[in-house]
Amino acid sequence: MNRPSGPSGRLIKAPEHFLSEAGIRDVFKDGAQGRRDFIRRAFTAAGAAVAMPAAMAQGTSAGDAGDPDILNLPEHSRGLGRAVATDGYGKPSQFEANVQRRPSPGLTQTSQASVSFAPLQSLFGIVTPSGLHFERHHQGWWDVDPSKHRLMINGSDERIVRTPMVFTMDELMRLPSVSRFHFIECGANTGMEWGNVAVPTCQYTHGMLSCSEFTGVPLKLLLDMAGVDYTRGRFVLGEGADGSSMTRTVPMELIERGEVIVAYGQNGEMLRPENGYPLRLVVPGVQGVSWVKYLRRIEVGDQPYGAKDETLHYVDLMPGGLHRQYTSLQECKSVVTTPSGGQVLLDRGFYSITGLAWSGRGKVRQVDVSVDGGRSWRGARLETPVLSKCLTRFSLDWAWDGRPALIQSRATDETGYVQPSYRQLRAVRGSRSIYHNNAVQTWQVGENGEVRNVQLAA
Amino acid sequence: MNRPSGPSGRLIKAPEHFLSEAGIRDVFKDGAQGRRDFIRRAFTAAGAAVAMPAAMAQGTSAGDAGDPDILNLPEHSRGLGRAVATDGYGKPSQFEANVQRRPSPGLTQTSQASVSFAPLQSLFGIVTPSGLHFERHHQGWWDVDPSKHRLMINGSDERIVRTPMVFTMDELMRLPSVSRFHFIECGANTGMEWGNVAVPTCQYTHGMLSCSEFTGVPLKLLLDMAGVDYTRGRFVLGEGADGSSMTRTVPMELIERGEVIVAYGQNGEMLRPENGYPLRLVVPGVQGVSWVKYLRRIEVGDQPYGAKDETLHYVDLMPGGLHRQYTSLQECKSVVTTPSGGQVLLDRGFYSITGLAWSGRGKVRQVDVSVDGGRSWRGARLETPVLSKCLTRFSLDWAWDGRPALIQSRATDETGYVQPSYRQLRAVRGSRSIYHNNAVQTWQVGENGEVRNVQLAA
Repeated sequence: MNRPSGPSGRLIKAPEHFLSEAGIRDVFKDGAQGRRDFIRRAFTAAGAAVAMPAAMAQGTSAGDAGDPDILNLPEHSRGLGRAVATDGYGKPSQFEANVQRRPSPGLTQTSQASVSFAPLQSLFGIVTPSGLHFERHHQGWWDVDPSKHRLMINGSDERIVRTPMVFTMDELMRLPSVSRFHFIECGANTGMEWGNVAVPTCQYTHGMLSCSEFTGVPLKLLLDMAGVDYTRGRFVLGEGADGSSMTRTVPMELIERGEVIVAYGQNGEMLRPENGYPLRLVVPGVQGVSWVKYLRRIEVGDQPYGAKDETLHYVDLMPGGLHRQYTSLQECKSVVTTPSGGQVLLDRGFYSITGLAWSGRGKVRQVDVSVDGGRSWRGARLETPVLSKCLTRFSLDWAWDGRPALIQSRATDETGYVQPSYRQLRAVRGSRSIYHNNAVQTWQVGENGEVRNVQLAA
Repeated sequence: MNRPSGPSGRLIKAPEHFLSEAGIRDVFKDGAQGRRDFIRRAFTAAGAAVAMPAAMAQGTSAGDAGDPDILNLPEHSRGLGRAVATDGYGKPSQFEANVQRRPSPGLTQTSQASVSFAPLQSLFGIVTPSGLHFERHHQGWWDVDPSKHRLMINGSDERIVRTPMVFTMDELMRLPSVSRFHFIECGANTGMEWGNVAVPTCQYTHGMLSCSEFTGVPLKLLLDMAGVDYTRGRFVLGEGADGSSMTRTVPMELIERGEVIVAYGQNGEMLRPENGYPLRLVVPGVQGVSWVKYLRRIEVGDQPYGAKDETLHYVDLMPGGLHRQYTSLQECKSVVTTPSGGQVLLDRGFYSITGLAWSGRGKVRQVDVSVDGGRSWRGARLETPVLSKCLTRFSLDWAWDGRPALIQSRATDETGYVQPSYRQLRAVRGSRSIYHNNAVQTWQVGENGEVRNVQLAA
């Protein structure tokens, strides 16, 4: 299918003369009526000529074109289809086989301590299907038996947690739960762009990003049950059960807000094995590494733990040779997913520019889109509901006139923070970092319609 | 895994002495602090005794219990796990194999004109995973080639639609789109209950219900492009491309609100084949049969079409022998999904009663829950965001004292409409109907903890 997906994806082929020059100008008029007139006229000229022949050829005309010849009907309009499911689990269409998560060849030395990127360029709305959720493992993934899994809660000393506890999955799932939509982004997402390496597609630049409805028990409730002394216990260590011994510090302020969840559910069902089944920590707004998978232990202490993944990794190298630590919060960011790198505009005319925006500090307030490399901006439409620490889908009408274009999006969150340009980001942080790149992304549309990833600021 | 799922599902086994009689009384105190104290005390008595042994046995204690013996660690805490995905599409855990959609044996004569029910008792939040979305086919399902699929828009006469059009999928996907969360419910959902047949589980009583984020083009935009005369064109016929020749009338009022979508996306990816890939009509609030799958044609006319599925089927048989037609809107309804029929409460003590509520007229305003067959009610917590014509997840703390209980939920929508009891519904509609049963559902908890579907009103 010719819809945007994967490196070989391409944008849709329009009828000839899809859009006149006069029509192109109309799209810049504001207001829905102007847009509808613009789109209608654009289609009318071309559509009227192809409507009947196309319908007849496909045998899809059953109305005013007379009785269709039964022999011309496709098989699915004549025959008996497949039966309802009696077992198993539904799968996507065979025609969508190219929509997959993909690792980046050579990015990591092993495929167990590696990444598989979500195909953002092929996704709609804000929910990431769990079968396409990005993967990031430190020592491979496991399908852990939930009947044997335990979650322990203890203190760094006995005054901090009065009643250390161990929960079975069944005990956890019996407790009051919440369900919330949140994005999860790896701190290293868009990491290769620091070195001016223009990774070809949106999947590889921004695909360590997903969004789900998570269900689980607020961690605060479990800490209350264990009798935490919150005057002493100001930090929590989350520990995973896989061989990577992943441990991360979470400040108690986040937990006291009630936002941190010990989650077992994702998009209506149990977590997937590659994303921590049966239990993971959900820390909204914070980088993915803190969302500890296969969560087996929560320790409450009086200071940050300085774990290996907080000292050796996930730190920000600064221009002077120092590094910043505990910069776990994902700042406001956005990316245009269509048109994006690797796609091809097969004809000039109307397109709906669309993409995703998010902020670890709350809701997205505004997204501006430029098609001229940031010289001028127009406000995009934000799809509702706009939720806190969740992806927000934006879109903007655009008529491509066939000339080169530089497409960008720039998000602003409810705190007023504005997503920086590469120039602004590098002025503060240099170019030797790996993590926490939230700069404006630029896609270049060539005269041949090919879309490429380009770095504007050297 | 012993979590609620499927007919063989059972509720979780709690530690012994999970809850004292004094603790049980506490749950009826209002306020979060009271609830937390109640839960903490309930766990403290039992938990302290089992915490350390359980942790040691599983090798999950790595904190204050000293260095664990490496030989006691489970394999997944020592070895190298599986690699990141290089192709394919992620699947649920092997331990979740019992969470499936299921047909009801003997319900239909063929498996192509049949139903497979969603496992509501195993789902969390509001999103239904597309692999578990209920199925309802009239002549089987197909995996239609999107490159050959067309959508035609025409009028019942040429004055109503000035420019009949045919769209390819590529052309449709180039247009402005919206993404919205909506429930879909078959008009026959809960149909067997009319005849006092107590279907055993929630999956079979209410499982023709699902909820997704749908993405597509507002139908109004397509009609605008085709130049519809809205003074003449007051009804639309949606026609599917499969062999069942499914056609349904949709009043223009719904379309003019901008809510009706020609959808290609579901939960972030393309529609699934069994749910209409590549194109289905989304008619929020209206019964599922109107959400025409494999949508190939929209005809605009000046009167309802009286199609076979509007005259022979999907009509409401009334007590006097007459039937009601065009009662397509799904009225406010709710169901408790846990505890529900087929599940077993293995011990007295704390449970979180949870379920789903929805209304075809807008948002759910309130859900009340009874554990004594409707003699007394308590207000449930509604999970946010509460969206229009979308599922709403509700929950309520409950301590089971070991005595028989009758669990019910009763939803009220934003119009003030209150979900009726069976007695109220039958007083108006008799007992010979199939469709549009939105009565309060009752689950009976026996002294042995077994949960059964019971009919209170004969």
